[in-house]
Amino acid sequence: MLKAAPSYAFNPQGDGKGKKVLILGGGLCGMTTAYELTKLGYSCTILEARDRVGGRCWSVRKGSHNTETGLPKQTAQLDDGQYFNAGPSRIPHHHELTLHYCKELGVPLQIYNNVNEGAYYFSEGKGPLSNQKIKVREVHNDMRGYMSELLHKSISQDKLDLALSKDDIEKVLEYLRAEGGLDIDNLYKASARRGYTVAPSTGNQAGKVAEAHRLADLISSGLTDPDFYNVAEYTYELQMTMFQAVGGMDKIATALEKKVGTLIKKGAEVTSIINTDAGVKVSYTDTTGKQEASADICICTIPLTVLSNLNHNFSSDVSRAIDYASYIATGKIGLQFKRRFWEEDEQIYGGITHTNNDLTQIFYPSNDYQSNKGVLLGYYNFNDKAIKTGNLSLIDREKLALEKGALIHPQYLKEFEKSFSVSWHKTPCSLGGWALYTSETRESMYKALLKPDKQVYFAGEHMTYLNAWMAGAFESARSVVTEVNNRLSEQRGEYKKVDK
Amino acid sequence: MLKAAPSYAFNPQGDGKGKKVLILGGGLCGMTTAYELTKLGYSCTILEARDRVGGRCWSVRKGSHNTETGLPKQTAQLDDGQYFNAGPSRIPHHHELTLHYCKELGVPLQIYNNVNEGAYYFSEGKGPLSNQKIKVREVHNDMRGYMSELLHKSISQDKLDLALSKDDIEKVLEYLRAEGGLDIDNLYKASARRGYTVAPSTGNQAGKVAEAHRLADLISSGLTDPDFYNVAEYTYELQMTMFQAVGGMDKIATALEKKVGTLIKKGAEVTSIINTDAGVKVSYTDTTGKQEASADICICTIPLTVLSNLNHNFSSDVSRAIDYASYIATGKIGLQFKRRFWEEDEQIYGGITHTNNDLTQIFYPSNDYQSNKGVLLGYYNFNDKAIKTGNLSLIDREKLALEKGALIHPQYLKEFEKSFSVSWHKTPCSLGGWALYTSETRESMYKALLKPDKQVYFAGEHMTYLNAWMAGAFESARSVVTEVNNRLSEQRGEYKKVDK
Repeated sequence: MLKAAPSYAFNPQGDGKGKKVLILGGGLCGMTTAYELTKLGYSCTILEARDRVGGRCWSVRKGSHNTETGLPKQTAQLDDGQYFNAGPSRIPHHHELTLHYCKELGVPLQIYNNVNEGAYYFSEGKGPLSNQKIKVREVHNDMRGYMSELLHKSISQDKLDLALSKDDIEKVLEYLRAEGGLDIDNLYKASARRGYTVAPSTGNQAGKVAEAHRLADLISSGLTDPDFYNVAEYTYELQMTMFQAVGGMDKIATALEKKVGTLIKKGAEVTSIINTDAGVKVSYTDTTGKQEASADICICTIPLTVLSNLNHNFSSDVSRAIDYASYIATGKIGLQFKRRFWEEDEQIYGGITHTNNDLTQIFYPSNDYQSNKGVLLGYYNFNDKAIKTGNLSLIDREKLALEKGALIHPQYLKEFEKSFSVSWHKTPCSLGGWALYTSETRESMYKALLKPDKQVYFAGEHMTYLNAWMAGAFESARSVVTEVNNRLSEQRGEYKKVDK
Repeated sequence: MLKAAPSYAFNPQGDGKGKKVLILGGGLCGMTTAYELTKLGYSCTILEARDRVGGRCWSVRKGSHNTETGLPKQTAQLDDGQYFNAGPSRIPHHHELTLHYCKELGVPLQIYNNVNEGAYYFSEGKGPLSNQKIKVREVHNDMRGYMSELLHKSISQDKLDLALSKDDIEKVLEYLRAEGGLDIDNLYKASARRGYTVAPSTGNQAGKVAEAHRLADLISSGLTDPDFYNVAEYTYELQMTMFQAVGGMDKIATALEKKVGTLIKKGAEVTSIINTDAGVKVSYTDTTGKQEASADICICTIPLTVLSNLNHNFSSDVSRAIDYASYIATGKIGLQFKRRFWEEDEQIYGGITHTNNDLTQIFYPSNDYQSNKGVLLGYYNFNDKAIKTGNLSLIDREKLALEKGALIHPQYLKEFEKSFSVSWHKTPCSLGGWALYTSETRESMYKALLKPDKQVYFAGEHMTYLNAWMAGAFESARSVVTEVNNRLSEQRGEYKKVDK
């Protein structure tokens, strides 16, 4: 019943003394790789192009900066203590390895409140419910109600040929009455689940349940559309419980930096990776000019979109897989407000408002509830919407976020203070949100990268089925450490096959 | 669109100088009443029978004690820093007044993680899924899948006479495909939503989706029964976002005590409440013997089940309403464990496991994630199950919790350290969990208590439609402060009608 060992157990054996490993990229994967290899005695060096560690695991706070392609340098002016997670902002409870490293590195966690029935669906310019703030609970419970009513009707009128006993059919009907909140006539007429227009209180105030939306109105306003309706929270990776690092997700990166900081050369931008007879030779530039580094083994965690622009002598299969890699276009904007009107005026504490306009989503902060100021994510969008938004100037992105956001929260106009936007596909050293594969490209591209190209190993979330998640970085680090250690131990004749 | 004033706005006007108000009960309602009346200048005294404030708002920690009827005194031996909320443990995001007082009193909040798809349903001794740990996500997504498949079939075979356009019907089908996670043939075959047997990871490990449970098995194992299936989280008051006070819910009580502590006589057990021509006279006992107190007005927050045993000269209607009051039987047990095996071994962080046996529910702590020790609620049961459990000796309650709990978590046996149980209906000064009303008793009983009996006002959660919630105590306090202040101001000729 219990697992023999937790999935985060990791005890590779070997002696890395005298072996040099060059790690390209000081993100979570690169730093974790160095952390684990160092435990085994390997001499590691990390080259990191940015002046900070963490890569996409980045929390924007006062002084954070970014320069996107074709745009001026942006430096965050957020108040002290204010921040937002420009990269990963959520940890699923089943990403054991991520949670394990948080524990091992002493990073405190708090709940990321991904599910909030009190946030909104907002359908701009569509149908009878257009431009209204519809609480998530209204859509959820109205749809459960209507669908349960219809199925109850269908089954009780014996219109479905169910492979169930008569008793079991009675139990399905009972389930539907409960699931849908149906009335005594098995009809859905609204219930307290969807909220009150007058709250229950003292004396004779029993509360007044709000009326249900009409099914036809929900449909024609687009609120049942799969890309809008919140089936997102059904997704395995988005189911509660979810976590975030207290104080910003970059606390994970800085905790790793405390362990391997002395091995990292920041501001070191790799220009070429060459396999040689003796090992691997990497050229890079830093503030003092052109540099070279050599090692027995190189572990490359550079995103494929960035790697594609470097010189290398990889095999044609590998080269092709790199050049044709596909990454998602995605962007976020953090908006700092004078006060938390979403909490104070609208009782929205964390969670997500979904909208059909270019914002796609508004994320409310899951930290420092009931404090004075706050930063929310004014948009978090993908693909076409992210490309469109990313093509705007910084001030026009802010303008878009404020104009569209004010349709939902008119308080925006009075309370807004500062913004900072990130378009990941336009950000050098990242050039995309995360790797996107189809079942075809898993075969035609991904597989070519699974084996090392001579002395060069590929690692990072793009080398996993955990794309977009920090778990991908950690799992990939473990995997590459195992492979490299097995290979080098074998070379020394002290080979012990160790399972990952 | 925005409210003119938040619902917690409260600005009664009046001058209470020279007027004495005697408040019976130092729970949340009694202390809040004193806090607000004191702001208006009234002279308040609170009589509290226990040696602590807070009433049912009680967190059990080292040294906490309770003596239930017919049982020996129980003193908690929990480790320093360990606690559980024996009374209210959750604050809904829409209980604005509770949240308002937390803010005003400086009580920090954190998420109470009420929804956790990684916790279990556990059906003991029933059907083919008997005694198996079924993850909440499995039941949720299997049932959504099967029900959506059935309705899709019914609609697409034109068996339902829907009052919808052809386009809208197509959209309902599209919704059902997304809601149920149906496959290309519109059948439910399981999906990643319900979890993996092999998790997605690095290399070729794409992950292996677990097989769905059979609908007939879910039904005959009772997992779709309304009293077992988790429709609880659909309830308005149990929808996320939910909060708890950091460090224990009693932090709210102790924060109030900081404001009104000097007005409270602890260990003062009321024996009689007599309306007189001049006001009201209350007898009570304390360590020094029999005492008397008099005042212009008395606000009685004593639970009706306790009040029923006191001497008084209330009208017959009021007396009858008190004597026939119904309160829920309910109990909890806190179990301290050496390590958080539910987190470490099973990735359960907060949330609730539901079971059909006497435990009813296991609550996992929503605090101090990834720390070493932890206290979970081994049971939280109601009505017959609570009466049965409450009738056990303390050691037999612990035995029940461990034996039944070990069916779900065999780690119980090795990791258990200490327990503390509370049976609220057997606890003097409470004698029940919370007031239970039917629509009939709202008319025949409750209404008699809404008006003061001469100089005596009744207040507390039992005087609201917010039974079981701290919000009831706060709302009732606001309500009675308004009424008393209006009456006394009127008497002085300075009457200004103030709306609550």
